[in-house]
Amino acid sequence: MRVGEVTVYNDYHLRVAWGDTDAAGIVFYPNFYIWMDRATHEFLDAIGINPAQLYEGGKVGLPLLETHCAFKSPVKFHELVRIRTSVAEVRAKVFKLTHDFYRGATLLASGYEVRAWVVFEGERLKASLIPDEIRAKLEGTGA
Amino acid sequence: MRVGEVTVYNDYHLRVAWGDTDAAGIVFYPNFYIWMDRATHEFLDAIGINPAQLYEGGKVGLPLLETHCAFKSPVKFHELVRIRTSVAEVRAKVFKLTHDFYRGATLLASGYEVRAWVVFEGERLKASLIPDEIRAKLEGTGA
Amino acid sequence: MRVGEVTVYNDYHLRVAWGDTDAAGIVFYPNFYIWMDRATHEFLDAIGINPAQLYEGGKVGLPLLETHCAFKSPVKFHELVRIRTSVAEVRAKVFKLTHDFYRGATLLASGYEVRAWVVFEGERLKASLIPDEIRAKLEGTGA
Amino acid sequence: MRVGEVTVYNDYHLRVAWGDTDAAGIVFYPNFYIWMDRATHEFLDAIGINPAQLYEGGKVGLPLLETHCAFKSPVKFHELVRIRTSVAEVRAKVFKLTHDFYRGATLLASGYEVRAWVVFEGERLKASLIPDEIRAKLEGTGA
Repeated sequence: MRVGEVTVYNDYHLRVAWGDTDAAGIVFYPNFYIWMDRATHEFLDAIGINPAQLYEGGKVGLPLLETHCAFKSPVKFHELVRIRTSVAEVRAKVFKLTHDFYRGATLLASGYEVRAWVVFEGERLKASLIPDEIRAKLEGTGA
Repeated sequence: MRVGEVTVYNDYHLRVAWGDTDAAGIVFYPNFYIWMDRATHEFLDAIGINPAQLYEGGKVGLPLLETHCAFKSPVKFHELVRIRTSVAEVRAKVFKLTHDFYRGATLLASGYEVRAWVVFEGERLKASLIPDEIRAKLEGTGA
Repeated sequence: MRVGEVTVYNDYHLRVAWGDTDAAGIVFYPNFYIWMDRATHEFLDAIGINPAQLYEGGKVGLPLLETHCAFKSPVKFHELVRIRTSVAEVRAKVFKLTHDFYRGATLLASGYEVRAWVVFEGERLKASLIPDEIRAKLEGTGA
Repeated sequence: MRVGEVTVYNDYHLRVAWGDTDAAGIVFYPNFYIWMDRATHEFLDAIGINPAQLYEGGKVGLPLLETHCAFKSPVKFHELVRIRTSVAEVRAKVFKLTHDFYRGATLLASGYEVRAWVVFEGERLKASLIPDEIRAKLEGTGA
Protein backbone atom coordinates (compact mmCIF):
# COMPACT_ATOMS: atom_id res chain seq x y z
CA MET A 1 0.00 0.00 0.00
CA ARG A 2 1.24 3.43 -0.93
CA VAL A 3 0.50 6.82 0.48
CA GLY A 4 -2.70 8.22 -0.93
CA GLU A 5 -3.99 4.80 -1.86
CA VAL A 6 -5.99 3.85 1.15
CA THR A 7 -7.65 0.54 0.45
CA VAL A 8 -8.61 -0.76 3.87
CA TYR A 9 -12.36 -1.31 3.95
CA ASN A 10 -15.14 -3.46 5.32
CA ASP A 11 -18.66 -4.26 4.07
CA TYR A 12 -21.47 -4.28 6.60
CA HIS A 13 -24.87 -5.65 5.57
CA LEU A 14 -28.21 -4.87 7.14
CA ARG A 15 -31.91 -5.18 6.42
CA VAL A 16 -34.09 -2.10 6.86
CA ALA A 17 -36.37 -2.74 9.84
CA TRP A 18 -40.01 -1.67 10.21
CA GLY A 19 -39.13 0.88 12.87
CA ASP A 20 -36.43 2.45 10.68
CA THR A 21 -39.03 4.00 8.38
CA ASP A 22 -41.18 7.07 8.87
CA ALA A 23 -44.78 7.88 8.00
CA ALA A 24 -43.79 8.45 4.37
CA GLY A 25 -42.54 4.86 4.22
CA ILE A 26 -38.88 5.74 3.72
CA VAL A 27 -35.94 5.45 6.10
CA PHE A 28 -35.87 8.16 8.79
CA TYR A 29 -32.57 9.84 8.00
CA PRO A 30 -30.83 9.72 11.42
CA ASN A 31 -30.77 5.95 10.95
CA PHE A 32 -28.05 6.44 8.34
CA TYR A 33 -25.86 7.83 11.12
CA ILE A 34 -26.84 5.00 13.49
CA TRP A 35 -25.77 2.64 10.72
CA MET A 36 -22.51 4.53 10.17
CA ASP A 37 -21.68 4.13 13.84
CA ARG A 38 -22.38 0.39 13.62
CA ALA A 39 -20.40 0.11 10.42
CA THR A 40 -17.47 1.83 12.13
CA HIS A 41 -17.47 -0.68 14.98
CA GLU A 42 -17.79 -3.60 12.57
CA PHE A 43 -14.94 -2.15 10.54
CA LEU A 44 -12.71 -1.77 13.61
CA ASP A 45 -13.51 -5.33 14.66
CA ALA A 46 -12.70 -6.56 11.15
CA ILE A 47 -9.23 -4.97 11.14
CA GLY A 48 -8.42 -6.32 14.59
CA ILE A 49 -9.38 -3.45 16.86
CA ASN A 50 -11.93 -4.75 19.37
CA PRO A 51 -14.21 -1.82 20.17
CA ALA A 52 -15.40 -3.27 23.51
CA GLN A 53 -11.83 -3.76 24.76
CA LEU A 54 -10.93 -0.33 23.49
CA TYR A 55 -13.37 1.27 25.89
CA GLU A 56 -13.32 -1.17 28.79
CA GLY A 57 -9.65 -2.05 28.62
CA GLY A 58 -7.95 1.22 27.87
CA LYS A 59 -10.68 3.77 28.49
CA VAL A 60 -10.30 4.85 24.90
CA GLY A 61 -13.22 6.47 23.14
CA LEU A 62 -13.74 7.61 19.57
CA PRO A 63 -15.99 10.65 19.83
CA LEU A 64 -17.12 12.39 16.69
CA LEU A 65 -15.76 15.74 15.63
CA GLU A 66 -17.85 15.97 12.49
CA THR A 67 -20.24 13.84 10.45
CA HIS A 68 -21.92 14.32 7.11
CA CYS A 69 -24.22 12.42 4.80
CA ALA A 70 -25.53 13.07 1.28
CA PHE A 71 -28.72 11.19 0.41
CA LYS A 72 -29.17 10.03 -3.19
CA SER A 73 -32.17 7.72 -3.18
CA PRO A 74 -34.94 6.85 -0.70
CA VAL A 75 -34.61 3.51 1.05
CA LYS A 76 -37.58 1.39 2.09
CA PHE A 77 -38.63 -1.23 4.59
CA HIS A 78 -37.11 -4.70 4.23
CA GLU A 79 -34.52 -3.65 1.65
CA LEU A 80 -31.01 -5.01 1.99
CA VAL A 81 -28.33 -2.35 2.36
CA ARG A 82 -24.57 -2.77 2.13
CA ILE A 83 -22.33 -0.20 3.75
CA ARG A 84 -18.76 0.03 2.53
CA THR A 85 -16.58 1.64 5.18
CA SER A 86 -13.13 2.90 4.16
CA VAL A 87 -10.34 4.84 5.82
CA ALA A 88 -10.04 8.21 4.12
CA GLU A 89 -7.40 9.82 6.32
CA VAL A 90 -5.33 9.18 9.45
CA ARG A 91 -3.87 12.21 11.18
CA ALA A 92 -2.04 12.49 14.52
CA LYS A 93 -5.06 12.34 16.83
CA VAL A 94 -7.90 12.13 14.35
CA PHE A 95 -9.08 9.80 11.60
CA LYS A 96 -11.76 9.97 8.94
CA LEU A 97 -13.93 7.12 7.66
CA THR A 98 -16.21 7.22 4.63
CA HIS A 99 -19.38 5.13 4.46
CA ASP A 100 -21.05 4.41 1.13
CA PHE A 101 -24.53 2.86 1.20
CA TYR A 102 -25.59 0.54 -1.62
CA ARG A 103 -28.64 -1.46 -2.67
CA GLY A 104 -27.09 -3.81 -5.16
CA ALA A 105 -24.99 -1.51 -7.37
CA THR A 106 -27.09 1.60 -6.64
CA LEU A 107 -25.43 4.19 -4.43
CA LEU A 108 -28.07 5.25 -1.90
CA ALA A 109 -26.10 7.61 0.30
CA SER A 110 -22.57 8.66 1.02
CA GLY A 111 -21.32 9.80 4.42
CA TYR A 112 -18.25 10.39 6.50
CA GLU A 113 -17.23 10.54 10.14
CA VAL A 114 -14.25 12.37 11.62
CA ARG A 115 -13.35 10.81 14.96
CA ALA A 116 -10.81 11.71 17.62
CA TRP A 117 -8.70 9.22 19.56
CA VAL A 118 -9.58 10.10 23.12
CA VAL A 119 -8.55 8.77 26.51
CA PHE A 120 -11.05 9.06 29.35
CA GLU A 121 -9.43 10.47 32.48
CA GLY A 122 -12.27 10.11 34.94
CA GLU A 123 -14.96 12.42 33.62
CA ARG A 124 -12.65 14.17 31.19
CA LEU A 125 -11.84 13.32 27.58
CA LYS A 126 -8.29 13.97 26.38
CA ALA A 127 -7.40 13.87 22.69
CA SER A 128 -4.32 11.63 22.33
CA LEU A 129 -1.93 10.38 19.67
CA ILE A 130 -3.23 7.40 17.75
CA PRO A 131 -0.89 4.52 18.78
CA ASP A 132 1.35 3.15 16.04
CA GLU A 133 -0.17 -0.33 15.99
CA ILE A 134 -3.66 1.18 15.59
CA ARG A 135 -2.41 3.47 12.84
CA ALA A 136 -0.89 0.51 11.03
CA LYS A 137 -4.20 -1.32 11.14
CA LEU A 138 -6.15 1.72 9.95
CA GLU A 139 -3.69 2.28 7.11
CA GLY A 140 -3.48 -1.38 6.21
CA THR A 141 0.27 -1.41 6.67
CA GLY A 142 0.27 -3.87 9.57
CA ALA A 143 1.80 -7.35 9.33
CA MET B 1 -52.38 9.71 52.70
CA ARG B 2 -53.03 6.20 53.97
CA VAL B 3 -51.38 2.91 53.18
CA GLY B 4 -52.78 1.37 50.02
CA GLU B 5 -53.88 4.73 48.68
CA VAL B 6 -50.89 5.74 46.65
CA THR B 7 -51.69 8.99 44.89
CA VAL B 8 -48.27 10.31 43.93
CA TYR B 9 -48.19 11.03 40.21
CA ASN B 10 -46.72 13.25 37.52
CA ASP B 11 -47.92 14.25 34.06
CA TYR B 12 -45.38 14.29 31.23
CA HIS B 13 -46.34 15.86 27.89
CA LEU B 14 -44.79 15.16 24.50
CA ARG B 15 -45.48 15.66 20.83
CA VAL B 16 -45.16 12.65 18.52
CA ALA B 17 -42.15 13.26 16.27
CA TRP B 18 -41.81 12.33 12.60
CA GLY B 19 -39.28 9.63 13.38
CA ASP B 20 -41.54 8.04 16.00
CA THR B 21 -43.88 6.71 13.33
CA ASP B 22 -43.53 3.71 11.05
CA ALA B 23 -44.40 3.10 7.41
CA ALA B 24 -48.06 2.64 8.36
CA GLY B 25 -48.06 6.17 9.77
CA ILE B 26 -48.62 5.17 13.40
CA VAL B 27 -46.22 5.24 16.34
CA PHE B 28 -43.67 2.41 16.30
CA TYR B 29 -44.53 0.63 19.54
CA PRO B 30 -41.10 0.52 21.28
CA ASN B 31 -41.42 4.31 21.51
CA PHE B 32 -44.07 3.81 24.20
CA TYR B 33 -41.34 2.21 26.32
CA ILE B 34 -38.85 4.97 25.47
CA TRP B 35 -41.53 7.42 26.64
CA MET B 36 -42.18 5.40 29.82
CA ASP B 37 -38.50 5.61 30.66
CA ARG B 38 -38.55 9.38 30.15
CA ALA B 39 -41.78 9.71 32.12
CA THR B 40 -40.11 7.79 34.98
CA HIS B 41 -37.16 10.18 35.08
CA GLU B 42 -39.47 13.21 34.88
CA PHE B 43 -41.56 11.71 37.68
CA LEU B 44 -38.50 11.12 39.89
CA ASP B 45 -37.32 14.66 39.25
CA ALA B 46 -40.78 16.01 40.11
CA ILE B 47 -40.85 14.26 43.51
CA GLY B 48 -37.35 15.44 44.38
CA ILE B 49 -35.20 12.52 43.28
CA ASN B 50 -32.62 13.82 40.81
CA PRO B 51 -31.95 10.97 38.38
CA ALA B 52 -28.57 12.31 37.28
CA GLN B 53 -27.28 12.59 40.85
CA LEU B 54 -28.70 9.18 41.61
CA TYR B 55 -26.36 7.60 39.11
CA GLU B 56 -23.36 9.90 39.25
CA GLY B 57 -23.49 10.63 42.96
CA GLY B 58 -24.38 7.33 44.53
CA LYS B 59 -23.86 4.88 41.69
CA VAL B 60 -27.51 3.93 42.01
CA GLY B 61 -29.32 2.51 39.03
CA LEU B 62 -32.94 1.55 38.46
CA PRO B 63 -32.80 -1.41 36.06
CA LEU B 64 -36.01 -2.97 34.87
CA LEU B 65 -37.21 -6.33 36.08
CA GLU B 66 -40.34 -6.33 33.99
CA THR B 67 -42.29 -4.02 31.68
CA HIS B 68 -45.65 -4.28 29.97
CA CYS B 69 -47.86 -2.18 27.74
CA ALA B 70 -51.41 -2.63 26.40
CA PHE B 71 -52.17 -0.57 23.30
CA LYS B 72 -55.72 0.75 22.90
CA SER B 73 -55.60 3.19 20.00
CA PRO B 74 -53.10 4.07 17.27
CA VAL B 75 -51.21 7.31 17.76
CA LYS B 76 -50.06 9.51 14.87
CA PHE B 77 -47.45 12.09 13.94
CA HIS B 78 -47.66 15.50 15.61
CA GLU B 79 -50.31 14.45 18.16
CA LEU B 80 -49.90 15.64 21.74
CA VAL B 81 -49.67 12.85 24.29
CA ARG B 82 -49.90 13.11 28.06
CA ILE B 83 -48.39 10.38 30.19
CA ARG B 84 -49.64 10.06 33.74
CA THR B 85 -47.07 8.23 35.85
CA SER B 86 -48.16 6.86 39.25
CA VAL B 87 -46.57 4.72 41.94
CA ALA B 88 -48.41 1.42 42.10
CA GLU B 89 -46.29 -0.40 44.67
CA VAL B 90 -43.15 0.04 46.76
CA ARG B 91 -41.54 -3.12 48.10
CA ALA B 92 -38.24 -3.61 49.94
CA LYS B 93 -35.90 -3.44 46.92
CA VAL B 94 -38.37 -3.01 44.08
CA PHE B 95 -41.01 -0.53 43.00
CA LYS B 96 -43.68 -0.46 40.32
CA LEU B 97 -44.83 2.52 38.27
CA THR B 98 -47.85 2.67 35.99
CA HIS B 99 -47.91 4.89 32.91
CA ASP B 100 -51.21 5.83 31.26
CA PHE B 101 -51.06 7.52 27.86
CA TYR B 102 -53.78 10.00 26.89
CA ARG B 103 -54.72 12.17 23.92
CA GLY B 104 -57.14 14.56 25.58
CA ALA B 105 -59.45 12.28 27.56
CA THR B 106 -58.84 9.23 25.34
CA LEU B 107 -56.75 6.48 26.90
CA LEU B 108 -54.25 5.43 24.21
CA ALA B 109 -52.17 2.89 26.08
CA SER B 110 -51.49 1.66 29.57
CA GLY B 111 -48.16 0.31 30.77
CA TYR B 112 -46.11 -0.49 33.80
CA GLU B 113 -42.48 -0.84 34.82
CA VAL B 114 -41.10 -2.86 37.73
CA ARG B 115 -37.68 -1.48 38.70
CA ALA B 116 -35.07 -2.60 41.21
CA TRP B 117 -33.04 -0.28 43.43
CA VAL B 118 -29.51 -1.27 42.51
CA VAL B 119 -26.07 -0.13 43.60
CA PHE B 120 -23.23 -0.43 41.09
CA GLU B 121 -20.15 -2.04 42.66
CA GLY B 122 -17.66 -1.65 39.83
CA GLU B 123 -19.07 -3.79 37.04
CA ARG B 124 -21.61 -5.56 39.26
CA LEU B 125 -25.17 -4.59 40.11
CA LYS B 126 -26.40 -5.33 43.65
CA ALA B 127 -30.11 -5.09 44.55
CA SER B 128 -30.38 -3.00 47.70
CA LEU B 129 -32.99 -1.75 50.15
CA ILE B 130 -34.78 1.38 48.97
CA PRO B 131 -33.62 4.10 51.42
CA ASP B 132 -36.33 5.48 53.73
CA GLU B 133 -36.22 9.03 52.35
CA ILE B 134 -36.68 7.70 48.82
CA ARG B 135 -39.52 5.45 49.96
CA ALA B 136 -41.22 8.43 51.62
CA LYS B 137 -41.02 10.39 48.37
CA LEU B 138 -42.34 7.49 46.30
CA GLU B 139 -45.22 6.92 48.73
CA GLY B 140 -45.95 10.62 49.12
CA THR B 141 -45.49 10.45 52.88
CA GLY B 142 -42.49 12.79 52.99
CA ALA B 143 -42.62 16.14 54.75
CA MET C 1 -47.38 -31.22 14.69
CA ARG C 2 -50.27 -31.66 17.07
CA VAL C 3 -52.55 -29.15 18.70
CA GLY C 4 -50.92 -27.58 21.73
CA GLU C 5 -47.46 -28.46 20.52
CA VAL C 6 -46.45 -25.34 18.72
CA THR C 7 -42.94 -25.83 17.44
CA VAL C 8 -42.60 -23.21 14.74
CA TYR C 9 -39.70 -20.93 15.61
CA ASN C 10 -36.87 -18.86 14.21
CA ASP C 11 -33.53 -17.71 15.65
CA TYR C 12 -32.46 -14.14 15.01
CA HIS C 13 -28.90 -13.10 15.87
CA LEU C 14 -27.64 -9.61 16.58
CA ARG C 15 -24.67 -7.83 18.08
CA VAL C 16 -25.30 -5.16 20.70
CA ALA C 17 -24.36 -1.80 19.16
CA TRP C 18 -22.69 1.14 20.91
CA GLY C 19 -25.84 3.21 20.73
CA ASP C 20 -27.95 0.43 22.27
CA THR C 21 -26.40 0.99 25.69
CA ASP C 22 -27.08 3.68 28.25
CA ALA C 23 -24.82 5.66 30.60
CA ALA C 24 -24.63 2.67 32.96
CA GLY C 25 -23.12 0.64 30.11
CA ILE C 26 -26.02 -1.79 29.78
CA VAL C 27 -28.65 -2.12 27.07
CA PHE C 28 -31.35 0.56 27.25
CA TYR C 29 -34.44 -1.61 27.78
CA PRO C 30 -36.71 -0.36 24.96
CA ASN C 31 -34.18 -1.91 22.60
CA PHE C 32 -35.45 -5.34 23.65
CA TYR C 33 -38.80 -4.35 22.12
CA ILE C 34 -37.12 -2.96 18.99
CA TRP C 35 -35.37 -6.32 18.71
CA MET C 36 -38.65 -8.23 19.27
CA ASP C 37 -40.20 -6.31 16.41
CA ARG C 38 -37.26 -7.19 14.17
CA ALA C 39 -37.33 -10.79 15.32
CA THR C 40 -41.03 -10.94 14.42
CA HIS C 41 -40.38 -9.72 10.88
CA GLU C 42 -37.45 -12.13 10.47
CA PHE C 43 -39.67 -14.93 11.78
CA LEU C 44 -42.47 -14.10 9.35
CA ASP C 45 -39.99 -13.97 6.49
CA ALA C 46 -38.55 -17.32 7.55
CA ILE C 47 -41.96 -19.06 7.47
CA GLY C 48 -42.81 -17.60 4.06
CA ILE C 49 -44.77 -14.49 4.98
CA ASN C 50 -43.06 -11.50 3.38
CA PRO C 51 -43.66 -8.56 5.70
CA ALA C 52 -43.06 -5.92 3.01
CA GLN C 53 -45.60 -7.50 0.64
CA LEU C 54 -48.00 -7.89 3.52
CA TYR C 55 -48.19 -4.15 3.95
CA GLU C 56 -47.64 -2.91 0.41
CA GLY C 57 -49.52 -5.68 -1.36
CA GLY C 58 -52.54 -6.27 0.82
CA LYS C 59 -52.52 -3.29 3.12
CA VAL C 60 -52.25 -5.68 6.04
CA GLY C 61 -50.70 -4.52 9.27
CA LEU C 62 -49.86 -6.32 12.49
CA PRO C 63 -50.35 -3.73 15.22
CA LEU C 64 -49.63 -4.66 18.80
CA LEU C 65 -52.37 -5.22 21.35
CA GLU C 66 -50.02 -6.01 24.19
CA THR C 67 -46.29 -6.57 24.79
CA HIS C 68 -44.31 -7.67 27.82
CA CYS C 69 -40.72 -8.40 28.73
CA ALA C 70 -39.04 -9.81 31.86
CA PHE C 71 -35.35 -8.94 32.17
CA LYS C 72 -33.06 -11.53 33.78
CA SER C 73 -29.53 -10.33 33.18
CA PRO C 74 -27.91 -7.09 32.00
CA VAL C 75 -26.59 -7.13 28.44
CA LYS C 76 -23.55 -5.15 27.32
CA PHE C 77 -21.99 -3.54 24.27
CA HIS C 78 -20.67 -5.86 21.56
CA GLU C 79 -22.23 -9.01 23.03
CA LEU C 80 -23.88 -11.46 20.67
CA VAL C 81 -27.55 -12.08 21.37
CA ARG C 82 -29.78 -14.81 19.93
CA ILE C 83 -33.54 -14.30 19.95
CA ARG C 84 -35.70 -17.39 19.64
CA THR C 85 -39.14 -16.43 18.36
CA SER C 86 -41.98 -18.96 18.69
CA VAL C 87 -45.69 -18.97 18.04
CA ALA C 88 -47.51 -19.31 21.35
CA GLU C 89 -51.10 -18.96 20.20
CA VAL C 90 -53.15 -18.32 17.07
CA ARG C 91 -56.70 -17.10 17.58
CA ALA C 92 -59.28 -15.88 15.05
CA LYS C 93 -57.90 -12.36 14.53
CA VAL C 94 -54.98 -12.32 16.92
CA PHE C 95 -51.73 -14.21 17.44
CA LYS C 96 -49.10 -14.30 20.16
CA LEU C 97 -45.34 -14.68 19.72
CA THR C 98 -42.81 -15.31 22.47
CA HIS C 99 -39.23 -14.03 22.20
CA ASP C 100 -36.48 -15.52 24.38
CA PHE C 101 -33.13 -13.71 24.44
CA TYR C 102 -29.94 -15.72 24.95
CA ARG C 103 -26.20 -15.12 25.27
CA GLY C 104 -24.90 -18.60 24.67
CA ALA C 105 -27.06 -20.77 26.94
CA THR C 106 -27.87 -17.94 29.37
CA LEU C 107 -31.44 -16.65 29.21
CA LEU C 108 -31.17 -12.86 29.27
CA ALA C 109 -34.79 -11.85 28.87
CA SER C 110 -38.14 -13.28 27.92
CA GLY C 111 -40.90 -11.36 26.17
CA TYR C 112 -44.09 -11.69 24.21
CA GLU C 113 -46.11 -9.75 21.67
CA VAL C 114 -49.85 -10.06 21.00
CA ARG C 115 -50.61 -8.80 17.49
CA ALA C 116 -53.84 -8.30 15.58
CA TRP C 117 -54.34 -9.08 11.89
CA VAL C 118 -55.52 -5.75 10.57
CA VAL C 119 -56.53 -4.47 7.15
CA PHE C 120 -55.99 -0.79 6.43
CA GLU C 121 -59.08 0.79 4.87
CA GLY C 122 -57.75 4.24 4.04
CA GLU C 123 -56.95 5.78 7.41
CA ARG C 124 -58.83 3.12 9.40
CA LEU C 125 -57.59 -0.17 10.78
CA LYS C 126 -60.03 -3.09 10.77
CA ALA C 127 -59.30 -6.29 12.71
CA SER C 128 -59.84 -9.20 10.32
CA LEU C 129 -59.77 -13.01 10.30
CA ILE C 130 -56.29 -14.43 9.87
CA PRO C 131 -56.37 -16.10 6.40
CA ASP C 132 -56.12 -19.91 6.41
CA GLU C 133 -52.79 -20.03 4.54
CA ILE C 134 -51.26 -17.61 7.04
CA ARG C 135 -52.66 -19.60 9.96
CA ALA C 136 -51.17 -22.80 8.50
CA LYS C 137 -47.75 -21.15 8.30
CA LEU C 138 -47.97 -19.76 11.83
CA GLU C 139 -49.06 -23.16 13.18
CA GLY C 140 -46.55 -25.08 11.10
CA THR C 141 -49.25 -27.20 9.48
CA GLY C 142 -48.65 -25.93 5.95
CA ALA C 143 -47.42 -28.21 3.18
CA MET D 1 -36.13 42.21 6.62
CA ARG D 2 -33.86 42.53 3.60
CA VAL D 3 -32.64 40.00 1.12
CA GLY D 4 -29.59 38.17 2.41
CA GLU D 5 -30.46 38.92 6.00
CA VAL D 6 -32.46 35.90 6.94
CA THR D 7 -33.48 36.19 10.57
CA VAL D 8 -36.33 33.74 10.90
CA TYR D 9 -35.58 31.32 13.71
CA ASN D 10 -37.07 29.18 16.46
CA ASP D 11 -35.69 27.85 19.74
CA TYR D 12 -36.50 24.25 20.68
CA HIS D 13 -35.69 23.05 24.18
CA LEU D 14 -35.15 19.45 25.28
CA ARG D 15 -33.76 17.51 28.20
CA VAL D 16 -31.25 14.74 27.44
CA ALA D 17 -32.93 11.42 28.25
CA TRP D 18 -31.30 8.34 29.79
CA GLY D 19 -31.57 6.41 26.57
CA ASP D 20 -29.90 9.19 24.58
CA THR D 21 -26.52 8.42 26.13
CA ASP D 22 -24.05 5.68 25.33
CA ALA D 23 -21.79 3.51 27.49
CA ALA D 24 -19.33 6.40 27.82
CA GLY D 25 -22.09 8.48 29.41
CA ILE D 26 -22.30 11.04 26.62
CA VAL D 27 -24.97 11.58 23.99
CA PHE D 28 -24.91 9.02 21.18
CA TYR D 29 -24.26 11.27 18.20
CA PRO D 30 -27.13 10.27 15.85
CA ASN D 31 -29.44 11.80 18.46
CA PHE D 32 -28.23 15.23 17.33
CA TYR D 33 -29.79 14.47 13.94
CA ILE D 34 -32.97 13.13 15.55
CA TRP D 35 -33.12 16.43 17.44
CA MET D 36 -32.47 18.43 14.25
CA ASP D 37 -35.41 16.72 12.60
CA ARG D 38 -37.63 17.56 15.59
CA ALA D 39 -36.32 21.12 15.67
CA THR D 40 -37.20 21.45 11.98
CA HIS D 41 -40.78 20.38 12.56
CA GLU D 42 -41.11 22.67 15.60
CA PHE D 43 -39.66 25.49 13.50
CA LEU D 44 -42.13 24.88 10.66
CA ASP D 45 -45.00 24.77 13.13
CA ALA D 46 -43.80 28.03 14.70
CA ILE D 47 -43.79 29.90 11.39
CA GLY D 48 -47.24 28.62 10.46
CA ILE D 49 -46.45 25.56 8.36
CA ASN D 50 -48.20 22.57 9.96
CA PRO D 51 -46.01 19.56 9.23
CA ALA D 52 -48.82 17.02 9.73
CA GLN D 53 -51.10 18.80 7.24
CA LEU D 54 -48.19 19.16 4.87
CA TYR D 55 -47.92 15.39 4.53
CA GLU D 56 -51.52 14.32 5.02
CA GLY D 57 -53.14 17.25 3.26
CA GLY D 58 -50.94 17.86 0.28
CA LYS D 59 -48.75 14.77 0.16
CA VAL D 60 -45.76 17.02 0.53
CA GLY D 61 -42.58 15.67 2.05
CA LEU D 62 -39.29 17.30 2.96
CA PRO D 63 -36.68 14.62 2.36
CA LEU D 64 -33.06 15.36 3.12
CA LEU D 65 -30.49 15.93 0.41
CA GLU D 66 -27.61 16.48 2.81
CA THR D 67 -26.99 16.86 6.54
CA HIS D 68 -23.93 17.74 8.58
CA CYS D 69 -23.00 18.27 12.21
CA ALA D 70 -19.82 19.48 13.94
CA PHE D 71 -19.55 18.46 17.59
CA LYS D 72 -17.84 20.87 19.99
CA SER D 73 -18.51 19.55 23.48
CA PRO D 74 -19.85 16.29 24.95
CA VAL D 75 -23.41 16.44 26.27
CA LYS D 76 -24.61 14.37 29.22
CA PHE D 77 -27.73 12.83 30.71
CA HIS D 78 -30.37 15.21 32.11
CA GLU D 79 -28.75 18.35 30.68
CA LEU D 80 -31.00 20.97 29.13
CA VAL D 81 -30.25 21.72 25.49
CA ARG D 82 -31.56 24.58 23.37
CA ILE D 83 -31.55 24.25 19.61
CA ARG D 84 -31.72 27.43 17.58
CA THR D 85 -33.03 26.68 14.09
CA SER D 86 -32.58 29.30 11.38
CA VAL D 87 -33.20 29.50 7.66
CA ALA D 88 -29.88 29.77 5.87
CA GLU D 89 -31.04 29.63 2.28
CA VAL D 90 -34.19 29.21 0.18
CA ARG D 91 -33.70 28.10 -3.42
CA ALA D 92 -36.30 27.11 -6.04
CA LYS D 93 -36.96 23.55 -4.83
CA VAL D 94 -34.58 23.29 -1.90
CA PHE D 95 -33.99 25.03 1.43
CA LYS D 96 -31.29 24.88 4.07
CA LEU D 97 -31.73 25.12 7.83
CA THR D 98 -28.96 25.52 10.40
CA HIS D 99 -29.29 24.12 13.91
CA ASP D 100 -27.07 25.39 16.74
CA PHE D 101 -27.09 23.45 20.00
CA TYR D 102 -26.50 25.31 23.27
CA ARG D 103 -26.23 24.53 26.98
CA GLY D 104 -26.68 27.99 28.43
CA ALA D 105 -24.31 30.13 26.37
CA THR D 106 -22.01 27.23 25.43
CA LEU D 107 -22.19 26.11 21.82
CA LEU D 108 -22.32 22.30 21.92
CA ALA D 109 -22.75 21.47 18.27
CA SER D 110 -23.61 23.08 14.97
CA GLY D 111 -25.44 21.35 12.15
CA TYR D 112 -27.37 21.89 8.97
CA GLU D 113 -29.97 20.16 6.86
CA VAL D 114 -30.63 20.66 3.14
CA ARG D 115 -34.17 19.58 2.32
CA ALA D 116 -36.10 19.29 -0.92
CA TRP D 117 -39.74 20.26 -1.40
CA VAL D 118 -41.21 17.04 -2.72
CA VAL D 119 -44.69 15.94 -3.79
CA PHE D 120 -45.57 12.27 -3.39
CA GLU D 121 -47.18 10.89 -6.54
CA GLY D 122 -48.16 7.42 -5.34
CA GLU D 123 -44.87 5.72 -4.62
CA ARG D 124 -42.77 8.36 -6.36
CA LEU D 125 -41.24 11.53 -5.00
CA LYS D 126 -41.12 14.55 -7.31
CA ALA D 127 -39.04 17.63 -6.45
CA SER D 128 -41.29 20.67 -6.89
CA LEU D 129 -41.16 24.45 -6.67
CA ILE D 130 -41.54 25.77 -3.13
CA PRO D 131 -44.92 27.59 -3.15
CA ASP D 132 -44.75 31.36 -2.73
CA GLU D 133 -46.63 31.44 0.60
CA ILE D 134 -44.24 28.85 2.02
CA ARG D 135 -41.25 30.78 0.72
CA ALA D 136 -42.57 33.96 2.34
CA LYS D 137 -42.85 32.18 5.68
CA LEU D 138 -39.37 30.68 5.40
CA GLU D 139 -37.90 34.05 4.46
CA GLY D 140 -39.89 35.93 7.06
CA THR D 141 -41.40 38.21 4.44
CA GLY D 142 -44.99 37.10 4.99
CA ALA D 143 -47.70 39.41 6.31
